[in-house]
Amino acid sequence: MTKLTMEKLVSYCKQYGFIYQGSEIYGGLANTWDYGPLGAKLKNNVKDSWRKRFIQERENAYEVDAAILMHPSVWEASGHVASFSDPLLDCKRCKKRLRADTLIDEFDENAKADGMTQEEMLAYIKEKQVPCPYCGASDFTDIRKFNLMFETHRGVTEDAKSKIYLRPENAQGEYVNFLNVQRTMRAKLPFSIGQVGKAFRNEITPGNFTFRTIEFEQMEYQTFCKEGTDSNLYAYFKEYAKKYFVDLGIQEEKLRYHDHEKLAHYAKEACDIEYQFNFGWGEINGTHNRTNYDLSRHEEYSKVSQSYLDPETNEKYIPYIIESTVGCDRLVLALLDNCYEEEVLENGEIREVMHFHPFLAPYKVAVLPLVKRYQGEKAKEVYQALCKAFPCSYDEAGSIGKRYRRQDAIGTPFCITIDQDTLDQETVTIRNRDTMEQVTLPLSSVQSYIEERIRFE
Amino acid sequence: MTKLTMEKLVSYCKQYGFIYQGSEIYGGLANTWDYGPLGAKLKNNVKDSWRKRFIQERENAYEVDAAILMHPSVWEASGHVASFSDPLLDCKRCKKRLRADTLIDEFDENAKADGMTQEEMLAYIKEKQVPCPYCGASDFTDIRKFNLMFETHRGVTEDAKSKIYLRPENAQGEYVNFLNVQRTMRAKLPFSIGQVGKAFRNEITPGNFTFRTIEFEQMEYQTFCKEGTDSNLYAYFKEYAKKYFVDLGIQEEKLRYHDHEKLAHYAKEACDIEYQFNFGWGEINGTHNRTNYDLSRHEEYSKVSQSYLDPETNEKYIPYIIESTVGCDRLVLALLDNCYEEEVLENGEIREVMHFHPFLAPYKVAVLPLVKRYQGEKAKEVYQALCKAFPCSYDEAGSIGKRYRRQDAIGTPFCITIDQDTLDQETVTIRNRDTMEQVTLPLSSVQSYIEERIRFE
Repeated sequence: MTKLTMEKLVSYCKQYGFIYQGSEIYGGLANTWDYGPLGAKLKNNVKDSWRKRFIQERENAYEVDAAILMHPSVWEASGHVASFSDPLLDCKRCKKRLRADTLIDEFDENAKADGMTQEEMLAYIKEKQVPCPYCGASDFTDIRKFNLMFETHRGVTEDAKSKIYLRPENAQGEYVNFLNVQRTMRAKLPFSIGQVGKAFRNEITPGNFTFRTIEFEQMEYQTFCKEGTDSNLYAYFKEYAKKYFVDLGIQEEKLRYHDHEKLAHYAKEACDIEYQFNFGWGEINGTHNRTNYDLSRHEEYSKVSQSYLDPETNEKYIPYIIESTVGCDRLVLALLDNCYEEEVLENGEIREVMHFHPFLAPYKVAVLPLVKRYQGEKAKEVYQALCKAFPCSYDEAGSIGKRYRRQDAIGTPFCITIDQDTLDQETVTIRNRDTMEQVTLPLSSVQSYIEERIRFE
Repeated sequence: MTKLTMEKLVSYCKQYGFIYQGSEIYGGLANTWDYGPLGAKLKNNVKDSWRKRFIQERENAYEVDAAILMHPSVWEASGHVASFSDPLLDCKRCKKRLRADTLIDEFDENAKADGMTQEEMLAYIKEKQVPCPYCGASDFTDIRKFNLMFETHRGVTEDAKSKIYLRPENAQGEYVNFLNVQRTMRAKLPFSIGQVGKAFRNEITPGNFTFRTIEFEQMEYQTFCKEGTDSNLYAYFKEYAKKYFVDLGIQEEKLRYHDHEKLAHYAKEACDIEYQFNFGWGEINGTHNRTNYDLSRHEEYSKVSQSYLDPETNEKYIPYIIESTVGCDRLVLALLDNCYEEEVLENGEIREVMHFHPFLAPYKVAVLPLVKRYQGEKAKEVYQALCKAFPCSYDEAGSIGKRYRRQDAIGTPFCITIDQDTLDQETVTIRNRDTMEQVTLPLSSVQSYIEERIRFE
C-alpha cells in the first residue's frame, strides 16, 4: 500500500468528480472548493450518518437549522466581536502579511506561540530574529489583531447599526434556541441540540486542500446538562465521537486524542480527536466542557432568563454545555485519505480502490451490461428499477475489466454484470469491490441483497 | 375544514417546534427564521425527496455542492453586479424607504410596474400622485437602484479588489462547473446539474413568514442541452416539477402555472408554478429556457471555452440551459399550509391533523406505553429498536388520547401503543393518523409494516 500524498489526493478528487477548485474557470477563489457529483453524494452520506448516530438513535436529541445571519448582539455575547481575531504582522521588506503565531511555530515547532500574549510573540520574534518565510528578512511591523468574522450590511445603509456577520461557528444557533427547543419539545435535561450547517472565517492561512477553508460545514452537537453531571458526559462524548469515526471505517491507529493544555477562560475541559492526514495530525472533532458560560452570557446580553426549572428537584439553574463537534469537510477529507488504496495485484498490476463504508459510497451499485449490443436494454431496465431504491451508476463503455476498475476507484461496493444468463435465466453476477469475489444471484433478490449490505449500524 | 390564516400557521410552527423567529431572544433579526427540531426534519426530508426525484431516479443527473463565496467575476458575467437591483425611493415627509414598483402595484394592481423603466415609474408616481402608504404624502426622492447582493471582503484589506458577494442564487455554481462535471462524469448532452443550498438577498420587502427571507435555500436544477431540443425539455420540466409537488401530497387545485409575459432579454420561455398560500398565489418553482446565454457569458468573461463537442455529430456548440428550480423553504411552507387540517369529529371535537406524506413526516412513528408504570420499560425497548431504522418519538406523559392528538398535530403517520397484550403476546396496536383506524400486529412485523408505508415513490 503506497502513501497517499496531498498532491495525489487533490488530483484524484478532481479526476473522479469529488472536489473541484472553487470558481475554477476564473482562476479560483483562494481556499474555496466545490464538491462535484461524487463528493456531494459522499458529503450528504456523511451528514446522514451523523444524523443517524447523533440525532435519530439518541433519545432527547434534536436537530435545528438556524439562520447563518444572526442578530449582531449574538456575537457580542459570544465574545467573537471582541476577541475572535488573528495576530497579524507585515514583513516590511517584501510586504507579505503573516500570522505571528504561525510564523513562530513554523520557525520552531516547540515554541508554542498558542500560549503567548501579543507582546510575548513580538519579543520572541525580535530576540530570535525569526525570518520572513518569503524573503528571509526579519523586519516586521507591530502585531495587529484582525477579526476573522466576515462582515456585511443589512438593509440599504452601510452604518454600524446595520452591520451583521456571517456566523463563524454554528454553536450560537443552538444556544439562542435552547429555550425554544426545551419548551416546544418538552425536553428534560440532559438533552442535545445538533446542527449541520455552514460557517465562515476570513482566514489568511492556507489550507491543506479542504482542511482549512474560508467556508466550511460543521456538524455541531451541544448537550445541555446539570452541573455535576458535566464531566461524565464530557468523557462519554469523547468516546462516542471516536466510536463514530471507527464505525465509519477510519482506522483506529490513525486517530488520537489531543487534550488541551491551555483552556479558554470559560472551559473546564477540552479535547480534540485528531486524524493522521498525509500532511500530519489534524483536528476533526472537538469535545468541550463549556460550563454555563454560553447561556450565562446570552442571559446577560439578551436580558432573557436562560434558567431551567428542574422538574425533579424544583431547582432553577443555568445548564452546563458539553459540545462535541465534527468538522464535516474535514471528516470527508479524512475518509478520502483513509479509504484510498493502491493495491498491488498478484499479476503486479496496481488496482486503485476507495474502500468507503457502503453507507458512504456515492453509488451503491453499478449496473454493467457485458456487451452493450446484446444486454444493454436489459441492463437499463435493471438500472432503472434499482435506482428507485438507492443511487446507482450505469456504464456500458469499454471492457468489463476497465469498468470494474473505474467503480473500484470511486468506491462503488457492488457491480452487477448483466450477461446472457440474465436474459436466459434472470440471474446476475454481483462482484464485491473489496474482495473482487463474484456471486450469482436471482435478479429478484438483488435489491434486498444490496439493501442489507449498505446500512450504517 | 377551516381556513388556515398566516397568524395561525406562524403560531402553530412555533408551538410545535417547526419554525422559530431568528435570534428571537435578541428581539429577532428581521426576515430570518430558524427551523426547530420538527422543521429541520421536515426540511431535510423535503430535500431528500427532491434528491430522489431529480437526481437519483434520473439518468445523467448530478448534484454539486459549490461554495457560497465565489469569484467576483462570476457576478459580473451573470449580470448581477450591473443589474440585480431594486428601484428604491424615499418619502420626503416621513423618510420611509420604499420600493417604487411595490408602491405602484399596491396603488393599482393593474399598473404592472414590473414592465416599466425607472423613468416610467417616476412619471407614473407623479402623474397619479401615488401616496406614501405610511404618511399619505406624495413627495418622493428620485429612484435609485440598490443592488440586492450582500457584499463582504476577503482578506485583510477592504478595497474594491477584495470585495466578494454572498451568492444571490445557486445557479452560477452549476454553470461554472459545467465543464468539470461533463468531463469527470463523461456526461453526454442532455444532462443535468442540481444543487441544494443557501442563497442571500438583501431585500427590504417584508416576507409573509418564510416566503421571502434574506437567506433562503434553493433546490436548483439546470439541464444542459442542444439547441432545438430545448423547448421540448422546457415543457417536460414544467410537467415534471408539478408532478413532484402532487406526489408530495399538494392538492392539484392549489397549484397553477404562471407563464411570464415579460421575459428577461436572454430568456426564450419562462413559467412559474404557484401555490395558493393563505396570503395569495406565490411562486414555488420556476422553469426557464435560458438559451445559451449563461455559458456564453462565462466564456466571454473567463476566456475559457464553454463549448461541448457532440460525439454523435462532431459539432461544437455552447449548450442551451433549461432551469427548473424549487424554493426549498417555500415548498416547506406550502406543505405546512396544504397539509394542516382542523377536522371536526363526530362528537363535535376539533382534531388538529398535519397530513404530511409519510416520507416527509418528522417522526415516522410514536411509541406510547399505555401505562408508563406497567409498560414503560417494554415501550422504551421497542422505541430503541425502531429508532435504528427511522426517526421515532417516545411519549409516556398524559392520557393516551392526548398523546394521539399531539402526534396527529405534528403529522406522525403511525402510533404504536404498548399494552398488556404486548407483554403477554408480543403484539402491538398501530393507529393510523389519517383514518384513526387501529390494527393489531405482531411486534416482529412492525418495522417492515412501517418501512413499506413511508417510501416516496
